[in-house]
Amino acid sequence: MNKFSVAELMRGAVALNEQVVIKGWVRTRRTSKAGISFVAVHDGSCFDPIQVVVPDSLANYESDVVHLGAGCAVIATGTLVASEGQGQSVEIQASEIEVVGLVEEPDKYPIAKKRHTFEYLRSQAHLRPRTNAIGAITRVRNTLANTIHNYFYQRGYHWVNTPIITASDAEGAGELFRVSTLDLANLPRTDKGEIDYAQDFFGGESFLTVSGQLNVEAYCLAMSKVYTFGPTFRAENSNTSRHLAEFWMVEPEIAFADLDDDAALAEDFLKVCIRSVLEEREDDMAFFQQRVDKEVINRLSNVVDSGFVHMDYTDAIDILLKSGQQFEFPVQWGMDLASEHERFLAEQHVKGPVVIKNYPKDIKAFYMRLNDDEKTVAAMDVLVPGIGEIIGGSQREERLAQLDARFPDPETAEHLWWYRDLRRYGTVPHAGFGLGFERLINYVTGMENIRDAIPFPRTPGSAAF
Amino acid sequence: MNKFSVAELMRGAVALNEQVVIKGWVRTRRTSKAGISFVAVHDGSCFDPIQVVVPDSLANYESDVVHLGAGCAVIATGTLVASEGQGQSVEIQASEIEVVGLVEEPDKYPIAKKRHTFEYLRSQAHLRPRTNAIGAITRVRNTLANTIHNYFYQRGYHWVNTPIITASDAEGAGELFRVSTLDLANLPRTDKGEIDYAQDFFGGESFLTVSGQLNVEAYCLAMSKVYTFGPTFRAENSNTSRHLAEFWMVEPEIAFADLDDDAALAEDFLKVCIRSVLEEREDDMAFFQQRVDKEVINRLSNVVDSGFVHMDYTDAIDILLKSGQQFEFPVQWGMDLASEHERFLAEQHVKGPVVIKNYPKDIKAFYMRLNDDEKTVAAMDVLVPGIGEIIGGSQREERLAQLDARFPDPETAEHLWWYRDLRRYGTVPHAGFGLGFERLINYVTGMENIRDAIPFPRTPGSAAF
Repeated sequence: MNKFSVAELMRGAVALNEQVVIKGWVRTRRTSKAGISFVAVHDGSCFDPIQVVVPDSLANYESDVVHLGAGCAVIATGTLVASEGQGQSVEIQASEIEVVGLVEEPDKYPIAKKRHTFEYLRSQAHLRPRTNAIGAITRVRNTLANTIHNYFYQRGYHWVNTPIITASDAEGAGELFRVSTLDLANLPRTDKGEIDYAQDFFGGESFLTVSGQLNVEAYCLAMSKVYTFGPTFRAENSNTSRHLAEFWMVEPEIAFADLDDDAALAEDFLKVCIRSVLEEREDDMAFFQQRVDKEVINRLSNVVDSGFVHMDYTDAIDILLKSGQQFEFPVQWGMDLASEHERFLAEQHVKGPVVIKNYPKDIKAFYMRLNDDEKTVAAMDVLVPGIGEIIGGSQREERLAQLDARFPDPETAEHLWWYRDLRRYGTVPHAGFGLGFERLINYVTGMENIRDAIPFPRTPGSAAF
Repeated sequence: MNKFSVAELMRGAVALNEQVVIKGWVRTRRTSKAGISFVAVHDGSCFDPIQVVVPDSLANYESDVVHLGAGCAVIATGTLVASEGQGQSVEIQASEIEVVGLVEEPDKYPIAKKRHTFEYLRSQAHLRPRTNAIGAITRVRNTLANTIHNYFYQRGYHWVNTPIITASDAEGAGELFRVSTLDLANLPRTDKGEIDYAQDFFGGESFLTVSGQLNVEAYCLAMSKVYTFGPTFRAENSNTSRHLAEFWMVEPEIAFADLDDDAALAEDFLKVCIRSVLEEREDDMAFFQQRVDKEVINRLSNVVDSGFVHMDYTDAIDILLKSGQQFEFPVQWGMDLASEHERFLAEQHVKGPVVIKNYPKDIKAFYMRLNDDEKTVAAMDVLVPGIGEIIGGSQREERLAQLDARFPDPETAEHLWWYRDLRRYGTVPHAGFGLGFERLINYVTGMENIRDAIPFPRTPGSAAF
């Protein structure tokens, strides 16, 4: 194990002139004619590598040190000293360099060059966390995940691991991946010649989940405050920078709560998430600001400092109609908002985060609570400048009669007998929302392609690695 | 949202004689002839319900309060007072009771009775978190999960979300679930009449992961300290109390580390996990001790207080051979240890946790590091009294030539080109282990059936809910 991480040395956890050992990978080596090599070593613990200054008095200087290049694994021992170089506070005056792992054919090391396209790096998903950008994303992802878990834990929520394999298309949210152990080359058949799913592993058709919401509602109506944070799936054949077949979603659910409680939770939650990255990952955020998106920190600070504006869908439609803007998709009451509309509202009209509430019932899911106008449901979307929708949620229909009237078909109602039960036995108003984790990562980092926000992206035609 | 949770009131976070509001579900109601009803209300925040004392002076006493029964949802307002009753410190003298949700046909409420078998409760998985036992398991699970994430975060580990859908049977760890969007009623065929998986969603065969280890190794060799914590899958047709088709696994992986580092991490990690439950979930643990397993707290305290004994597999075989015990499976060098052997070693011989190291290579996975004896690999299992193996890990083979010699077949080596790459570019000794999360929950609570450790269990023939 590392005696010290680079992060510990960089943030001053160790006194100058102490003996230290670090273990990591070479990012660059520069050898001066004066008989000194400067070796930059990273270990993933922070954005910057630490500079190790190696004198030619070391026994393996000629044999090892001057041959070090990007990717080589080393253990460096030496004295921690103040750095005279620019851009770093401390460096190590090496008394020993042990080469642990070399790079085979260094000129063919797939990520040897300093700059690669993100697209190319996806083809090297096993090595790309060694790069500045993907290393930074990994740390931001980790910080966000930790903030999310602690946000909820400290407020008395329970993390509920809802099932990945499910017998139902719970939300009707999209196309499903089938999960099966049937031998496709020799499918069992019923007397009628149909495929006999009764012989499949779970005794029926089963799929990958699109959302844990319906399941987590059952735990909400027992534990009061719950959330899911796990993988969800969409078998959508969309090869865009915004779609993943497998992505992680956060879904809190609160009992004795209405849509305003839900919106207040979403606002507080989002601000805490963003603030944690700004505070804990300052080094990585400086990189994103400099290399990826010059506006990213301003945009995040704006979200943290804003009170989220609340607006009814009907008022939002009015604003769009009166805006004088030319939209690709014409505006009319009853339509779903497209990205262009969402961004106009957040970026041009409100100039900050906005919560749109009470959407037409016909464009929203059956489980959302019918409002008294009987035309709209208690749904909300949180829109932020830069990307538009980042959170979608609703108050759930807790009244059995109204729920029954909104099921898309009798089969769904029958299949969700247990979901109906929740409305028969001590039902209470409750609400929740969903946040796509990779979408949040992209928003926070300014990265454009969602395939760079997850370690090993799954997309149409590709489950490599 | 709850003005106060029951847990806050119970732990003295609110001064006596304060006005409080609580929101939750009735567990019991008892009405005395003296014109008082005692209503026990739970909200999932802690083991005990709070007693709400309701006088018949309330306007809805006759119409509502005396009809309240198990499962009804209420909002109770009143004064927090010291309790005169046994077994509770505080209670609420109600000034108002609002009935939010009734129970339809109370005598048919599926969990109305006080005692149910765990087997029956599984058929009511949507309601069972309202029971004492499953509520307690939910809280213990949540505490363990939070401890795990914070354990790693505070020590500089990165949570890496390895993919759920994978193109390979990475470990050869068991039967796989196929993931597909092909239309089974109309399967595409190649010219040769075989199923054309090139037309499947990912352009080839794909499956649910059995372990994130191989993927997380890639991140380990960039970020130094990483872990997975996510769902894994086994399509094993085993209907036992120890098998789930879908379960959660924790897999840390550390760079510049050998088997002893791995064992030290496992010991420290396990102790921190157990200690957090003993300290943070005292109320729930008292229940498990009283109703589920009289020995559970003793057993856990013993693990926390013990230095884990280390023992070579070869020595363990010697001990078993010389034990004079009659085992169902005869002991000989080269065999895998069965549960009876593991439990003898931990319970009879060591009388505490024991780490068995350096297993015969032929019974262990290809990626485990070959020892100098060329007969054993640097694998370890952590055995604890009560259940035997709780953690399995190994140092990974970081040398390309040795790895290549251990691949089960050329196809695996070809498919894992990227895993080989990790040994070509800055390879370092590294190690890790896997811990089944539900197995840990059962160990910590004394529960016997693993289906009670996860909210919605998936087993052969059943993906209900």
